[in-house]
Amino acid sequence: MQPCVQAKDPGYEKRVRDSFGQQQAMRLIGATLGHLGPGTARIDLPFRSDLTQQDGFLHAGIVSTIADSAGGYAGLSLMPADSRVLTTEFKLHLLAPARGERFTATGTVVKAGRTLTICELRVVATDGGKDTLVAYGTQTLMCIPGPA
Amino acid sequence: MQPCVQAKDPGYEKRVRDSFGQQQAMRLIGATLGHLGPGTARIDLPFRSDLTQQDGFLHAGIVSTIADSAGGYAGLSLMPADSRVLTTEFKLHLLAPARGERFTATGTVVKAGRTLTICELRVVATDGGKDTLVAYGTQTLMCIPGPA
Amino acid sequence: MQPCVQAKDPGYEKRVRDSFGQQQAMRLIGATLGHLGPGTARIDLPFRSDLTQQDGFLHAGIVSTIADSAGGYAGLSLMPADSRVLTTEFKLHLLAPARGERFTATGTVVKAGRTLTICELRVVATDGGKDTLVAYGTQTLMCIPGPA
Amino acid sequence: MQPCVQAKDPGYEKRVRDSFGQQQAMRLIGATLGHLGPGTARIDLPFRSDLTQQDGFLHAGIVSTIADSAGGYAGLSLMPADSRVLTTEFKLHLLAPARGERFTATGTVVKAGRTLTICELRVVATDGGKDTLVAYGTQTLMCIPGPA
Repeated sequence: MQPCVQAKDPGYEKRVRDSFGQQQAMRLIGATLGHLGPGTARIDLPFRSDLTQQDGFLHAGIVSTIADSAGGYAGLSLMPADSRVLTTEFKLHLLAPARGERFTATGTVVKAGRTLTICELRVVATDGGKDTLVAYGTQTLMCIPGPA
Repeated sequence: MQPCVQAKDPGYEKRVRDSFGQQQAMRLIGATLGHLGPGTARIDLPFRSDLTQQDGFLHAGIVSTIADSAGGYAGLSLMPADSRVLTTEFKLHLLAPARGERFTATGTVVKAGRTLTICELRVVATDGGKDTLVAYGTQTLMCIPGPA
Repeated sequence: MQPCVQAKDPGYEKRVRDSFGQQQAMRLIGATLGHLGPGTARIDLPFRSDLTQQDGFLHAGIVSTIADSAGGYAGLSLMPADSRVLTTEFKLHLLAPARGERFTATGTVVKAGRTLTICELRVVATDGGKDTLVAYGTQTLMCIPGPA
Repeated sequence: MQPCVQAKDPGYEKRVRDSFGQQQAMRLIGATLGHLGPGTARIDLPFRSDLTQQDGFLHAGIVSTIADSAGGYAGLSLMPADSRVLTTEFKLHLLAPARGERFTATGTVVKAGRTLTICELRVVATDGGKDTLVAYGTQTLMCIPGPA
């Protein structure tokens, strides 16, 4: 699963970080955009008790929120300068309870096509220094040419 | 897609509503549990600008959050009294931009097995009195016997 | 899940049936194209012991083969005359052992977009006059403009 | 994506190969079981024109058939001696036309649980000495204790 190494848009990093900055849902939950490379993106989320489900673990929907955005920005990094990205579908396996003090979602491009891009999604929980893969899946993105 | 009509636990409604009340993520985003029947559950979410992605629509992850919980509670309604529910995986198609003043997620049990339950997930956006199906997918739930 | 009622191409039925006739895999397994309407298609498959997995039931891959084609032709029925269809992804839940004397796969269009079409897939097994839903899922199709 | 290195059943290879030998669908399409290790399995399929879809490429359902079995046997290799395996769901992205003189499906266990096992599925086409990833996805398997 090597990320494609060449970005068409040399200014992709600013473009992706600007888009992330406009995602108000990320601010609400306290997520930040970490490492970004051509075809890969990482989102970090510290645990907060207001993000939990009934057993006190991170809600699967919040896990999905950071996974979906990590994949979306991995894909956007490889798209032409004047384009936008939409998730058309994703599937996520929840492998273990999302228990930990922080969570890291990584999106990695598996195939970057002209119209559709396929990503792998992974979310790791860090709990007392121990990392556990808590979510794993795949995503389809669509490249929308032209400005918003 | 008829919901299974018989709940094993006559007290399922209280059990489901108590569990929903413990989902702090639902409170954070402002979601409420609406209609509940054996094998079906509905979650309502008014639009808020702090739940959006970069284009001002509801973030796909927030759409997923209400869809996942609606399916989970549809499934839990049919499970034995002393059991818990876990999502093991779900897939969601994002059919149209999640634009609207409110959103309704519906989970419907397609097959309730002893260990695994399969649900259909739908999210409808209401925009100026017009309803649009914005998300559609399927989910696998696992029944965990015994108390938490 | 109402199929879209209007086909853009009034000659869609001949076009779909011609395409099905070119699927040699369908001939190999003995599947035939049944009812076809705008946004819906049905494929019938009688049981044969050479289509089985290790327990003597229809192999999940064969179940997928008829489900995928049923969805593909449901989608193609709504596409413009001079276009082709590709499956970009599908997900299938295998709800029960595929045991029976015949199997019916139905594809139904949920959303027909200009580029992408989303379908619901269902496979029913008929065993001694009793019908059981054995597979259920969703699919993304892509419309490729122009001749092959 | 390292396969889990320890098989519970030291005789897993014979058990998996015996099960594969009973899959009549594999014989019909001409697939053989290649490399097998704890948590990983490979299935090889030479191209045959009677396995094609309307454009002459390998049918997506046949691609799914070898992918599903590769994942199933990757999972079974890690299960206890006296158990069986069922696919409960899988999702497959079809990344490129399945064109080539032979196809290799690889299943790799991502998480082996007591009841559920999650696998990654990959299918590579070899065409004139060049390898292309043509399908990629994930799968949920269920371990059924006890003999058939």
